[in-house]
Amino acid sequence: TVFGPVFAQTKKKIRWRMATSWPKSLDTIYGGAQTIADRVRAMTDGNFDIRVYAAGEIVAGLKVVDAVQQGTVQAGHTAAYYYIGKHPAFAFGTVLPFGLTFRQQNAWLYDGNGNKLLNELFSDFNMIGFPAGNTGVQMGGWYRKEINSLADLKGLKMRIPGLGGKVMSRLGVTVQVLAGGDIFPALERGAIDATEWVGPYDDEKLGFYKVAKYYYYPGWWEPGPTLHTFVNLKAWNDLPKEYQQIYMTAAAEANQQMQVDYDFKNPAAFKRLLAKGVKLRRFSNEILDAARKESFALFEETAAKDAFYKKVYEDWKAFREEINRWFGTAEASYVQYVASRS
Amino acid sequence: TVFGPVFAQTKKKIRWRMATSWPKSLDTIYGGAQTIADRVRAMTDGNFDIRVYAAGEIVAGLKVVDAVQQGTVQAGHTAAYYYIGKHPAFAFGTVLPFGLTFRQQNAWLYDGNGNKLLNELFSDFNMIGFPAGNTGVQMGGWYRKEINSLADLKGLKMRIPGLGGKVMSRLGVTVQVLAGGDIFPALERGAIDATEWVGPYDDEKLGFYKVAKYYYYPGWWEPGPTLHTFVNLKAWNDLPKEYQQIYMTAAAEANQQMQVDYDFKNPAAFKRLLAKGVKLRRFSNEILDAARKESFALFEETAAKDAFYKKVYEDWKAFREEINRWFGTAEASYVQYVASRS
Repeated sequence: TVFGPVFAQTKKKIRWRMATSWPKSLDTIYGGAQTIADRVRAMTDGNFDIRVYAAGEIVAGLKVVDAVQQGTVQAGHTAAYYYIGKHPAFAFGTVLPFGLTFRQQNAWLYDGNGNKLLNELFSDFNMIGFPAGNTGVQMGGWYRKEINSLADLKGLKMRIPGLGGKVMSRLGVTVQVLAGGDIFPALERGAIDATEWVGPYDDEKLGFYKVAKYYYYPGWWEPGPTLHTFVNLKAWNDLPKEYQQIYMTAAAEANQQMQVDYDFKNPAAFKRLLAKGVKLRRFSNEILDAARKESFALFEETAAKDAFYKKVYEDWKAFREEINRWFGTAEASYVQYVASRS
Repeated sequence: TVFGPVFAQTKKKIRWRMATSWPKSLDTIYGGAQTIADRVRAMTDGNFDIRVYAAGEIVAGLKVVDAVQQGTVQAGHTAAYYYIGKHPAFAFGTVLPFGLTFRQQNAWLYDGNGNKLLNELFSDFNMIGFPAGNTGVQMGGWYRKEINSLADLKGLKMRIPGLGGKVMSRLGVTVQVLAGGDIFPALERGAIDATEWVGPYDDEKLGFYKVAKYYYYPGWWEPGPTLHTFVNLKAWNDLPKEYQQIYMTAAAEANQQMQVDYDFKNPAAFKRLLAKGVKLRRFSNEILDAARKESFALFEETAAKDAFYKKVYEDWKAFREEINRWFGTAEASYVQYVASRS
């Protein structure tokens, strides 16, 4: 170690508030925000201090972008696709049905045109955004009876928000949107026939397995949702350059660490659920093919109405096709082989 | 933004050298070391400056651990499994045949017992280690003729180093170890019948497709090799606490970013190789099953001879079984489905 001359430096004390869309009970997702705050604090010897707030503490869960845009808070941790009402291209920040997995999403965002294109959009909302977490491929949810064909979906009452809900609706499902705490009672009394949530670790806590035995996969509407941290542009530009890099690198670690946490917690929860008699089912190709067709029809309709969405969609779609061909080879064959022998 | 009182701080100027095992031509792997150095420099406003060296510039490529252990350099970027001659458990730091993928390896290392157990070993070599890159599931290499059965492997002359080579040898392959630059001429003149390297992006540069048309997958001996950065313990303990966190978070970003770089570069290279007439083949289950059996026989033999290896192996093996069951569900089915429709 070569020590050069010691010199004096002035360091700003910075305090930020980070609003999130998460209750603390979603500990893995909430943990993405906490990872950023913890790392930033430790990397600056406590000089850059970010306090994280759960949904509703200072900002409603689905108003995080509004609060960051207006400067009510300096930063947020949320899912971009909650804000497709503001602009449909927000969806590409998180995930689209039949879209990209964790690794594919990262490749498009960091090395492809993803982050660059999305930040053109985010800057219209007075923000800069960074990927900051992922759940991996989610499960397809809990069903009170088996769903073998498209006919079984007709009239099914299912809790499924977002674009997944829009596609399910085109397949004849009666779509409902319920907050986390309202789902179990509705499923228990038969007000709904099915619900989706996240994956084994989060689903187990809400107890769906007690009232709906069929657990379907894959969750084709959420193959690798990226969570984002958004920062108000004025707050960002006021940061010293080294604190900007510290924030970005902390967000990159959070992006990986949330996936690590899910990959560590899901296997044990999956094992426990199977031991409780949960019946695993793969969606049939008939259902997957119809859902994929309706998903792309929806994307094309949206692209026809908005030039910026079209620009992002075309870049995303070309990337998706090329990377799926490669992932279908070494990655898919390996994972499938070792799972078949475990 | 709330600015607190500005205060004076003394900040050490630190200069480190990082030896690596990589030629600069392996730009994606070498890039893992460069990412750490770049981020650390930017996060410290240039005060913590790490210079990265290619293999052979100051330390031979396979002597990085020796140099870090002795304090010749403060840090290194290498693959732990190059050092199984020092202790067989170094293998778990990188990858084992039929072992963990990128995400599985991360889950075991960061949240499971992986990093903790490995650092018990690394500290015996006067080092601390952090994951700092991954290639994803590699390809199974280039073959001058088709390999359909175990009989086709008998007497095959193949360049394959490490544990993969040990397993291939147990299957009757005549194993050879050649440095990168010597492989193409040997394959061209028929001195070897087959070779493995990494995946489409790196393989394309060495031109193997010109002389061996059959490209097999998956590379079951390298399903998700983790590269490591090692730091000399005295150099580590001399760092201010915030610089330790800056180094660790930079290494975490490098771990993700190298995988991002491979996932961005491989799809295009894969497409180009297919356009050149490369013939893709999946290893048969007969070959995979026999290789898996010999791999675990090898691990068990090693475990019988070394108590620490046995301790790590048993933890790793239990984790592997549980996570493979989960990955065989949502992840494998989704990736396989979308690839089949692309």
